[in-house]
Amino acid sequence: MKNNPEVEIITIGDEILIGQIVDTNSAWMATELTKEGFHVFQITSVSDNAEHIIEAVDNALARVDIVLITGGLGPTKDDITKQTLCRYFNTELVYNQAVMDNINTLFPNRPHLLNELTYGQAYVPKNATIIQNLVGTAPITWFDVKDKVLVSMPGVPSEMEWAISNEIIYNLKKRFNTPSLLHKTVQVLGHGESALAIILTEWENNLPDCIKLAYLPSPGLVKLRLTGNLPDKNELEKIIDAEIKKLYTILGSAIIADRDVPLEVVIGDLLKKNNLQLATAESCTGGNIAHLITSVAGSSVYFKGSVVAYSNEVKQNILGVTTESLIEFGAVSQSVVEQMAQGALKQLQADIAVATTGIAGPDGGTAEKPVGTVWICVCTKEKLISRAYKFSTFRGRNITMATISAFAMIKEIVEA
Amino acid sequence: MKNNPEVEIITIGDEILIGQIVDTNSAWMATELTKEGFHVFQITSVSDNAEHIIEAVDNALARVDIVLITGGLGPTKDDITKQTLCRYFNTELVYNQAVMDNINTLFPNRPHLLNELTYGQAYVPKNATIIQNLVGTAPITWFDVKDKVLVSMPGVPSEMEWAISNEIIYNLKKRFNTPSLLHKTVQVLGHGESALAIILTEWENNLPDCIKLAYLPSPGLVKLRLTGNLPDKNELEKIIDAEIKKLYTILGSAIIADRDVPLEVVIGDLLKKNNLQLATAESCTGGNIAHLITSVAGSSVYFKGSVVAYSNEVKQNILGVTTESLIEFGAVSQSVVEQMAQGALKQLQADIAVATTGIAGPDGGTAEKPVGTVWICVCTKEKLISRAYKFSTFRGRNITMATISAFAMIKEIVEA
Repeated sequence: MKNNPEVEIITIGDEILIGQIVDTNSAWMATELTKEGFHVFQITSVSDNAEHIIEAVDNALARVDIVLITGGLGPTKDDITKQTLCRYFNTELVYNQAVMDNINTLFPNRPHLLNELTYGQAYVPKNATIIQNLVGTAPITWFDVKDKVLVSMPGVPSEMEWAISNEIIYNLKKRFNTPSLLHKTVQVLGHGESALAIILTEWENNLPDCIKLAYLPSPGLVKLRLTGNLPDKNELEKIIDAEIKKLYTILGSAIIADRDVPLEVVIGDLLKKNNLQLATAESCTGGNIAHLITSVAGSSVYFKGSVVAYSNEVKQNILGVTTESLIEFGAVSQSVVEQMAQGALKQLQADIAVATTGIAGPDGGTAEKPVGTVWICVCTKEKLISRAYKFSTFRGRNITMATISAFAMIKEIVEA
Repeated sequence: MKNNPEVEIITIGDEILIGQIVDTNSAWMATELTKEGFHVFQITSVSDNAEHIIEAVDNALARVDIVLITGGLGPTKDDITKQTLCRYFNTELVYNQAVMDNINTLFPNRPHLLNELTYGQAYVPKNATIIQNLVGTAPITWFDVKDKVLVSMPGVPSEMEWAISNEIIYNLKKRFNTPSLLHKTVQVLGHGESALAIILTEWENNLPDCIKLAYLPSPGLVKLRLTGNLPDKNELEKIIDAEIKKLYTILGSAIIADRDVPLEVVIGDLLKKNNLQLATAESCTGGNIAHLITSVAGSSVYFKGSVVAYSNEVKQNILGVTTESLIEFGAVSQSVVEQMAQGALKQLQADIAVATTGIAGPDGGTAEKPVGTVWICVCTKEKLISRAYKFSTFRGRNITMATISAFAMIKEIVEA
């Protein structure tokens, strides 16, 4: 078996080349493949044009061991990847009953969605291995090309992600030897990337040779990914865990999680473990905290609900914020955010409540309270913490950073 | 001058190939170039490796008229694009006083940022045309290669955007003739991609030759993009608008927008135009409607707030849903969703309210109400519409589709 296989990702679609969509599939695939020890050598985006697809496939197969193709598998006539691969591999489309059976099970309640074009998905290249797509109509098509592999999969992100996670990496690992990599991720709040790098200089310089470190910054959060490479996985895990322990000594509560899951999962697990039910009262975050919390399956166990109090009337009528406080301190103030949190705790009969009020921007800032000023309060029946933040001048970033900070304050009060 | 020039974008950086960053530069450049009539033929991402960069440049110059390169121009030693281009074009780095002057003016208040590495940026390829980068230290390097052009620019998005907008497109238009392209997008709800293709077969077959059609599906929504190509832009716009008019005749209210903006912007503009204030009462959508509405700057004008009523107590205590209805019909029912909408309208003092209740999944489904069952109600003081939907078995997709359907029902009641 070939060691350390190289991969080229080819994304197909006119919509990528006119800039209508950002190709997020490639980054997602590259992340997963890299974690599993595959080396992504090149990413190529081409149009829904047969000659161009053939040229790209031909070049890629000359360059790398594995070619992963997304897109161009829709049922309409602008999608031509399947037909083009038939031409390239000198084969034809044949009817496949298993694909048809899969299509029929996909829409048990909506037979009207099944039509002639969808049924066309059941025609697949004759000399390929067909892997059923359990979340969509276009199957995954696997070609063995001497000692190389080419896989064509749908471009719909949820279908591509399902295919990579459940089928493709598993099957590639049977064909290629990948190094024994182990990744652990620590998520750090409240430090920028370069500030964090300075704090961690000594620790980083003393890392064992078998561990590589990557900084993965996003607004408000830096993920530190430790990647270890040793044949002995147990030994490797011990070494990595020892380094993470050192990180806790250096960074303390700035570490919000030591696994690579969304913060809403971290907070959900924490609430569940402590048998607490959360409520939110959101002004500047506009429901984003509730949206993220409820994006996790099973969140109804620990989430009561939210009052998105965008207008002052809602702050007063539903959450019981006093007119006096709104007039004296303004909606973005410690007094108001504390009343919002306490109002949510009471009105939504929760064990813990978090409230946000701030100026998300781009308008509404003043000299005293510029865009990016956000007050956050978290409270239980016994405890209360409130804090002011100054984020950025960008609306989306302010909403994200306020949400992350709210998660951090929930963790803080639960663990206090 | 060459007509209809083809472009290849090459993005350089290890961080792209390990999935650490999403390559948003390419989509941004592709959008701007397409609007100006350049044809982006391919996008290629390669690592910070000299041989690989040279291979990519050589292939691109064989394929297209214009090669635009971003990245690998930082001052640190892992960035090697400039040195590699010197090698490829058989030239050397020479000191350029104009670049040094520009660097010195960039940081008038922060001379400590200017160090040896930054000053290295003043060394540029001898046989290239240098365009000053007024927003960063790495200049834009323009090579004329017989009748073709290669431009190397920084990968920092703000610097790349400045370079494309202010220098590169302007200078390319002096070298190449570009066609008069025009894109318009129609957004359609309630039809899958293939069902829509069948409905539109006759219309599509009769499209004028100067118009190309693309289907761009996402959960719950299909975008139809019409791209026209005619020298006379006014004539072209008339032709495209006539085709969109025909689409309205065929699809009617299934068209939720005839421009390419997010639906929350469409709904926001509609509410603003009609001087209406919205409230939401969200169970299965968990705050996603409120989150999207408030992601738009200025939404406080038309958005009052939301009650995310995840638990039955919140439905009862805040929205006034009766215990009898909850017991007799269950939380996912017409009766409850109508009371939720009416409760939100009243409690949040809004002009229009939308409510959702459903089984997002993956658990909680029954034979009678399987996962994906969602009731949505929209009401004003005078009107009320409520409707049951059956979406999918996937939590995220159900939340998205319920949100999109809620937007559609808001549009429906406002325009009724």
